Amino acid sequence: MSLSEFDIIARYFRRSPAGSGVELGVGDDAALVSPSPGRSLVLAMDTLVEGRHFPADTRPADIGHKALAVNLSDLAAMGAEPAWALLALTLPTVDEDWLRGFSEGFFTLAGRFGVTLVGGDTTRGPLTVTVQVLGQVAAGRALRRDAARPGQHLFVTGTPGDAALALEGVLAGESVASALRERLDRPEPRVVFGQRLAGLACAAIDVSDGLLADLGHLLEASGCGARVDVDAIPRSRWLRAIDDSRALAFQLGGGDDYELCFSVDADQVEAVHEAARDCGLAIAEIGIVEPQPGIRCVRADGSPFEAVVPGFDHFGDRRG
Amino acid sequence: MSLSEFDIIARYFRRSPAGSGVELGVGDDAALVSPSPGRSLVLAMDTLVEGRHFPADTRPADIGHKALAVNLSDLAAMGAEPAWALLALTLPTVDEDWLRGFSEGFFTLAGRFGVTLVGGDTTRGPLTVTVQVLGQVAAGRALRRDAARPGQHLFVTGTPGDAALALEGVLAGESVASALRERLDRPEPRVVFGQRLAGLACAAIDVSDGLLADLGHLLEASGCGARVDVDAIPRSRWLRAIDDSRALAFQLGGGDDYELCFSVDADQVEAVHEAARDCGLAIAEIGIVEPQPGIRCVRADGSPFEAVVPGFDHFGDRRG
Repeated sequence: MSLSEFDIIARYFRRSPAGSGVELGVGDDAALVSPSPGRSLVLAMDTLVEGRHFPADTRPADIGHKALAVNLSDLAAMGAEPAWALLALTLPTVDEDWLRGFSEGFFTLAGRFGVTLVGGDTTRGPLTVTVQVLGQVAAGRALRRDAARPGQHLFVTGTPGDAALALEGVLAGESVASALRERLDRPEPRVVFGQRLAGLACAAIDVSDGLLADLGHLLEASGCGARVDVDAIPRSRWLRAIDDSRALAFQLGGGDDYELCFSVDADQVEAVHEAARDCGLAIAEIGIVEPQPGIRCVRADGSPFEAVVPGFDHFGDRRG
Repeated sequence: MSLSEFDIIARYFRRSPAGSGVELGVGDDAALVSPSPGRSLVLAMDTLVEGRHFPADTRPADIGHKALAVNLSDLAAMGAEPAWALLALTLPTVDEDWLRGFSEGFFTLAGRFGVTLVGGDTTRGPLTVTVQVLGQVAAGRALRRDAARPGQHLFVTGTPGDAALALEGVLAGESVASALRERLDRPEPRVVFGQRLAGLACAAIDVSDGLLADLGHLLEASGCGARVDVDAIPRSRWLRAIDDSRALAFQLGGGDDYELCFSVDADQVEAVHEAARDCGLAIAEIGIVEPQPGIRCVRADGSPFEAVVPGFDHFGDRRG
């Protein structure tokens, strides 16, 4: 044990200059920041456990990226602008190569979205990474789960299912194409597009547990249901290369994608498409909100599709 | 595995009514809160790992208490009023008795200080508890580590050293008096007194790593040193019952006490004593800030005392 907690922080986690609104960053009992008047503060916290949220062979830089990305994805799903983060890092040993890679992955993503690390804790124990992020959104403009209403159009960003396909390959010991593996290891939080959606979309959620499971949470919170055209969900080249029914299972049930699923009033659909074009982000309209609870899946020809889709429960096991 | 993550949250961690300033609590992608205008937001995050920050036989209610208490202690050391918290709980199994006890300990302390749990994450893995707390303090009034100046009087609350004495007994398999064990398992964060100190005291830190180690951090951040009368540090009845040199080692080097150590300008000393009386809290003046770096310990008769005091490094091992 060559480095103390203080050495680790000083060497890998104290970066300057401080970002906007930071009065006092890493190094005191607590950090001090100045929220902007008239905005709501948006708070998310997610934990990654080795072997559960990332394979044991995941590169340290990817763990650093992902630990922050999954949290930024939560802010994106609220339409918030990221501002500050705290990091609780539990490590079995001090491995400077690991710390260098991890901090590089973390700070590269933080820098892209203007996030300042202002505090946290470093402890010894089984590898666990908890990140807490703070963002801001204009008061009353946050995208909540409970704002979907019948008649609204349902959208999803990107190509859900890729991360789960990659994970299956990794767990089976197969060689996974690096671009596909990136979909698992380096999810891209839809931060800029999420902020554009605040004021345009109604309800939103990020797809971490699987598209149907997360859409189900959104609809349940909103007290309604939906009809989803499963063939309208964009399919990546990797999912197009496998059997149709397996591809659908990944698209509808795969977790860890960190895409956004959201509902939009009919008169805002064109504006949402324009926002996506501005962000260079592919989105697809996949269904419509209906009054009856539950999700009714159909194929492109209108025939019903019976989706048996376990959502990923980050605590329990996959539920069938 | 009978309970899912959602069941656990619904059963043990969703409490109403929401506290002040909460727009959206547990259950969305992120929480929404409204900070008060003109105040700084104070952010702390600390992790407890089983076997490292609490003995494996610690009662679940005590773990819930301590996980929040150590964070509230950081807010107290900044002079902040607690407001909201997030909880990242990593559990090896779902044990409903454990969850019931843990949440009871957590929420009892939260309720005493008006803290609302607004979000977090529940994952499966080795037992690790990370709590992130948010408080508020009038702009410019936070107690920082770097505000000590020569001539200021140094104070400490309570009787430092008790927690380390208790831990030594627990680790040695001895029977530890329950009131002493409480000093380890249920530290009392000095939240109300900390708020009184904002505007009265200058620099402050909480004693988590040991009195001399933490005072050293404060002095280093302030660019000065101190003279400490080790006999002025209040000694509990348990520490009075052991050998003087061992008692001093616990008082000066023992961690986990969560007392406050702070510096006060001479003209505020009486006001600080009055604040302590109002809070029913024992405090003691233990030394004086001096320009020369380093801590010079003396006995009551003025003779030098050579303190060899390892600070507790929460990452590494005890350092000698």
